[in-house]
Amino acid sequence: MTAVAGTSDAPLLRAARGERVDRLPVWFMRQAGRSLPEYRALRVGVPMLDACMRPDLVIEITLQPVRRHGVDAAILFSDIVLPLKALGAELDIVPGVGPVIAHPIRDLAGVQALPEFDPGALSFVTEAVSGLVAELGETPLIGFAGAPYTLASYLIEGGPSKEHADTKALMRGAPDVWDALLSRLAEISGQFLRLQVEAGASAVQLFDSWAGGLAADDYRRHVLPHSAAVFGMVADLEVPRIHFGVATGEILTDMSTAGVEVMGVDWRVPLDEAARRIQAGQAVQGNLDPTLVFAPWDVIEAKTRDVVRRGGSATGHIVNLGHGVLPDTDPEVLTRIVDLVHSLDVPD
Amino acid sequence: MTAVAGTSDAPLLRAARGERVDRLPVWFMRQAGRSLPEYRALRVGVPMLDACMRPDLVIEITLQPVRRHGVDAAILFSDIVLPLKALGAELDIVPGVGPVIAHPIRDLAGVQALPEFDPGALSFVTEAVSGLVAELGETPLIGFAGAPYTLASYLIEGGPSKEHADTKALMRGAPDVWDALLSRLAEISGQFLRLQVEAGASAVQLFDSWAGGLAADDYRRHVLPHSAAVFGMVADLEVPRIHFGVATGEILTDMSTAGVEVMGVDWRVPLDEAARRIQAGQAVQGNLDPTLVFAPWDVIEAKTRDVVRRGGSATGHIVNLGHGVLPDTDPEVLTRIVDLVHSLDVPD
Repeated sequence: MTAVAGTSDAPLLRAARGERVDRLPVWFMRQAGRSLPEYRALRVGVPMLDACMRPDLVIEITLQPVRRHGVDAAILFSDIVLPLKALGAELDIVPGVGPVIAHPIRDLAGVQALPEFDPGALSFVTEAVSGLVAELGETPLIGFAGAPYTLASYLIEGGPSKEHADTKALMRGAPDVWDALLSRLAEISGQFLRLQVEAGASAVQLFDSWAGGLAADDYRRHVLPHSAAVFGMVADLEVPRIHFGVATGEILTDMSTAGVEVMGVDWRVPLDEAARRIQAGQAVQGNLDPTLVFAPWDVIEAKTRDVVRRGGSATGHIVNLGHGVLPDTDPEVLTRIVDLVHSLDVPD
Repeated sequence: MTAVAGTSDAPLLRAARGERVDRLPVWFMRQAGRSLPEYRALRVGVPMLDACMRPDLVIEITLQPVRRHGVDAAILFSDIVLPLKALGAELDIVPGVGPVIAHPIRDLAGVQALPEFDPGALSFVTEAVSGLVAELGETPLIGFAGAPYTLASYLIEGGPSKEHADTKALMRGAPDVWDALLSRLAEISGQFLRLQVEAGASAVQLFDSWAGGLAADDYRRHVLPHSAAVFGMVADLEVPRIHFGVATGEILTDMSTAGVEVMGVDWRVPLDEAARRIQAGQAVQGNLDPTLVFAPWDVIEAKTRDVVRRGGSATGHIVNLGHGVLPDTDPEVLTRIVDLVHSLDVPD
């Protein structure tokens, strides 16, 4: 596989390709922000999606955790609904609530009213990625996008939802509308990932945050083909593709068939078991419980060592949390976990 | 096993014991209330926990779904925090929020301040159960309680939580406080179940709503012994014991070792797979997706038939949702599902 010249030997990319590493790569989902005081200082008075559209802020926020923790990858500071917003969809992120959509989509007219992908509307992303890659040197930048199902759930519910009842009702009751919507979203997500890789990102991660709420038969029939379409759209770019969701134990095997090199695993499925569920030759990423950081250090250390040991069952292991960094996390604990992981022998 | 005289041949109890049934038993978690207009009419101006403490209301609300849907069991109208409230804990259920605790428990003093079990404080439950059993005739009444972990999560967080970070922090950081708290809660839950069975309930269900948020190693070490203690406290009563939580795929095997006859299964794990994960001779309960009711009838019918077919792999199957009835559910759809299940041949 090719990769940006300076990063191709980075531990994260070697592990993603199943190659031998001298030290285990580690990064944290949602490391760009949330728990860092220097992030919160930058965000004062700047709404979330505004911050995601200012290249200077995106660059600074994306670099903060790399500087502070010494993690093995940066991940673009963004939000899964950002491309939709930038392309003109009427939505916003309401603090304490999450993404809120002005006109929830329930029919074909709603799908057709979705904006077309337009790289010009996302030039600030290209600018931020290019700037980041120059700053990051040998540290890879991970690009990312929301998966069609998770994006659809926001567009259909109109906002965050626990049960996704309207989403599943549309999925089961109007398969034509459903497939039209998810096809459009797959196109946007795929193009958005391409744009990031073409600007210099060395890997991509597709977040299907809510897919774990689906039974496997529903996932296979209504969701997997659209996620596979996204991964297919970046296959020729030959960067590692990471796939992630939470509570995905029952669909991990299906998700791993979407055309990916690395499967993200939440904290529920031990990595030796995850390695059995995914495709041969795939690497795993995860699976420290995000709440583990609140435990005494000896508990954190023992669990981290156990996760690393079990991760040795897979072809490669990128150490990470099993979900995002919680806002109350003490950043010093994250740094200590990075140092611990880097000090450990790589399992055979 | 013994059971209340009139109910011992009820399909639900036969299925729970792994005996042959002529028709499949079906009931719905949270059937007592939520979706029924006759329930909402009764609740106008009556706060949730007040309703749970008035035997006349408990009896009427518990009977409503039996009358309307023809389900094969009644479940006592109550709430998992009800015994704590009745025993004197300072908590309440805030509409739209959930249980809220005045003084979250974080130390041994907090544990010691918890009230002792006192059957006198729960005489309204005895009265309601006795009245219900007289009304229900051959239809079994299921008693229920919250499991120690789920109760502890409310007491520690002070209210509902998505991540249960404080709960897990106490679990990992103060095992002495943790075990003292869960032991006290196990005692209360076990005594509360005994009281219901002694008043005439024919089966019990222990709800561990949030256990599925735990990795299996944490569950086994910190939670399972306390759930097993609850089931042990009612073992001599010889009524079927049902155990339930959501997102429990990875801990289903462990949960099934707690001393139970029936394992509840959410909608993520197909019942043929669930049957492989639990102990030999145990029955399964579930696993229709609660959002399935919003689908067109042909989709509901096909899925219900599939769930029934797969349930045939287990020693017995009690048809149910994989979680509670959602408030927007059309009660007529529930009745139609009951009629469908009753019309189906029992799988060999």
